[in-house]
Amino acid sequence: MISVEQALQTIANSAQDFGVEEIPLLQSLGRILKEEIKADRDFPPFHRVAMDGIVIDYSQFQKGQRSFKIEGIQPAGSEQVLLKNPSNCIEVMTGAVLPMHANAVIRYEDIRIEKGVATILLNEICEAQNIHQQGKDSKKGQVLIKQNTRISAAEIGVLATVGKDKVKVAKNPKVMIVSTGNELVDVGAIPLAHQIRRSNVFTLVSLLERLHIPSETAHISDDKWLLKAKVETYLTQYDVLLFSGAVSKGKYDFLPEVLDQLGVEKLFHTVAQRPGKPFWFGKSTLLLASHQDVPLKKEKNQTKNTLVFAFPGNPISTFVNCLVYFYPWYHKSIGLKEEEETAILAEDVSFKPSLTYFLQVTVNCRFGHLIATPIQGNGSGDLASLVHSNAFIQLPKEQAAFVKGAAYKIIRYR
Amino acid sequence: MISVEQALQTIANSAQDFGVEEIPLLQSLGRILKEEIKADRDFPPFHRVAMDGIVIDYSQFQKGQRSFKIEGIQPAGSEQVLLKNPSNCIEVMTGAVLPMHANAVIRYEDIRIEKGVATILLNEICEAQNIHQQGKDSKKGQVLIKQNTRISAAEIGVLATVGKDKVKVAKNPKVMIVSTGNELVDVGAIPLAHQIRRSNVFTLVSLLERLHIPSETAHISDDKWLLKAKVETYLTQYDVLLFSGAVSKGKYDFLPEVLDQLGVEKLFHTVAQRPGKPFWFGKSTLLLASHQDVPLKKEKNQTKNTLVFAFPGNPISTFVNCLVYFYPWYHKSIGLKEEEETAILAEDVSFKPSLTYFLQVTVNCRFGHLIATPIQGNGSGDLASLVHSNAFIQLPKEQAAFVKGAAYKIIRYR
Repeated sequence: MISVEQALQTIANSAQDFGVEEIPLLQSLGRILKEEIKADRDFPPFHRVAMDGIVIDYSQFQKGQRSFKIEGIQPAGSEQVLLKNPSNCIEVMTGAVLPMHANAVIRYEDIRIEKGVATILLNEICEAQNIHQQGKDSKKGQVLIKQNTRISAAEIGVLATVGKDKVKVAKNPKVMIVSTGNELVDVGAIPLAHQIRRSNVFTLVSLLERLHIPSETAHISDDKWLLKAKVETYLTQYDVLLFSGAVSKGKYDFLPEVLDQLGVEKLFHTVAQRPGKPFWFGKSTLLLASHQDVPLKKEKNQTKNTLVFAFPGNPISTFVNCLVYFYPWYHKSIGLKEEEETAILAEDVSFKPSLTYFLQVTVNCRFGHLIATPIQGNGSGDLASLVHSNAFIQLPKEQAAFVKGAAYKIIRYR
Repeated sequence: MISVEQALQTIANSAQDFGVEEIPLLQSLGRILKEEIKADRDFPPFHRVAMDGIVIDYSQFQKGQRSFKIEGIQPAGSEQVLLKNPSNCIEVMTGAVLPMHANAVIRYEDIRIEKGVATILLNEICEAQNIHQQGKDSKKGQVLIKQNTRISAAEIGVLATVGKDKVKVAKNPKVMIVSTGNELVDVGAIPLAHQIRRSNVFTLVSLLERLHIPSETAHISDDKWLLKAKVETYLTQYDVLLFSGAVSKGKYDFLPEVLDQLGVEKLFHTVAQRPGKPFWFGKSTLLLASHQDVPLKKEKNQTKNTLVFAFPGNPISTFVNCLVYFYPWYHKSIGLKEEEETAILAEDVSFKPSLTYFLQVTVNCRFGHLIATPIQGNGSGDLASLVHSNAFIQLPKEQAAFVKGAAYKIIRYR
């Protein structure tokens, strides 16, 4: 049995680059940018009028002139006009190019217009006021968004501004999520007395959807030969297999044996944690000679790597292990650094086993403090308890008593 | 000019119920549940074996018996078997129904099996140990998920467990997002010197996608008659119109005038805030007699309500106003209570105008404290600055000095 930290190190070492794909701008929300985005021009690209009003030659104001004949208009989206007579002014609109030979914008609020003449009502104005200078925000060629940024609405706006109607993002791994166990029936079915409905695969699909990773699902009954045949096929087709169940000590927990027979290298099995201890993690490296489904590259023999995350079948165990292990593996694989979040325990907690304890908590924010209140669940089978909390707090195995007011790492799931 | 608080009150009063739709389970992630979810049976639905091992009649152990002949096996997913001879035991698997006449499960780790006989290696065991009692987590009929809950992976699991392959969720409003301004060209185009690319509509689409609201987009040039004709049509077709631009004092800011001509009631225009001050908000109520596109209900005359959020065209103004006004309006409309988040200022801030100040900050978590560090932008036109922050902190207009260490409301956008 290894520690959570050792398990995380092994998983980080198994991070893998799945390449890059180019997708339409509006589909890229939530994905990880895989190119550096530079300013294609200065921003603003011209001296930009920042207020609706008039523009004048500032030196005329300095000389004492207050009334200016309106010579013309400069709307946004029109070519730059010229202030022909320095004693005149031009009406200008927000977003317009600053007219040539003019250098101070006065707001409509600060002028009075009568018979084509604008009179400034202020005693003082500044040169270049209400003008957003060309290149003030960014210079042409400047990096606006770094590679490996998660694309949010803010990045979408910048990508549009620099003309990226297609965006390079991290390609997703191909993921298959498999449930096992003869007690499971479909969601739409009426279970018999000894049966329950499948739920873990859908929880996992949803946890992956949160990362914008699509996935497929399958169910395999507790039959060793069927399990072996199906997993053998999946290993040639998918980058990642997520299992829920069949990894503990039961007579029908065939998965570790089957994976061993299929040459999947076990990297660890069982982690010193609660819930989720019987977690099995391994890696398959297949030599693909000339398999018809796999197009050959230049090399004669290609290898196909598949990672196998085999989570214990209890709902909370599957749930927490996906968050604790799959999430960081994925973030490492795509080059994203996720910031650690911590919260303050709202009450004393005692946990004696020498295991890392992932305790369900409700995290609330009070005056800038994140407060984690433990919620009472009924153990790793009580899926419904997750509805009443929003995070797990990670209590280290070296301690048995955790005092109110101490801060520990949290893992939010909503 | 009204205050942010007054504006929010007016917007809350305009909240509207858009009804309910039933969608497939896996499409419901992120949506708002519009039915109460009850346990369709006890959970667990039977006394459930919680460990792999054997089950015995506890009274035999009490009498001193330690070795038990294995009489049979109870796998998960099989009908309940019976312990025929109280001196025997049955092998049981996690998830199985507890065999009849047996009441203590001993883990494989705590027994030795030789020649079909299991010997218990413990001196003490408890009655009912390692058994997850029927109904322990939830009783049949108990509410598992309340109405108006946002569906996360946790809820998906519970919904699957109780057999909801279809789920009732809040229907989304039909939203049209419109940009105006002759200076704007398409993302794929090369702008002329005096032009820039459209970006605000895509930012808004993305901010709405974050709420799982699909939307459509359009662009209208600065032509009063065209604007009027298009908006007139939109008012019959959409529940919400979001505009970016054309609401300030410019000669081509026709929107307030056009909306007035079309009978859209102005609820307010300009809010005491920076950025985003010239925000226009109003409501259209059309009497639809027998319009062919609108199926008639029982009443002869139907009304069609449309809300108009007309945001100022500067990128940061549009961005912040969508978060500050559209988001709470939507949450109120679908019945979701969003918890307020606060963060602690990392440095002193001075802001003299009597305006609510939405300051861009980067929020980090340190030992359970949320720390908000202001970032230096170049005003409301500097969209790229949003890439370097993750939230706005809302500084009230009654104050001019905000000291390091004080906590204020934050609005995160990633």
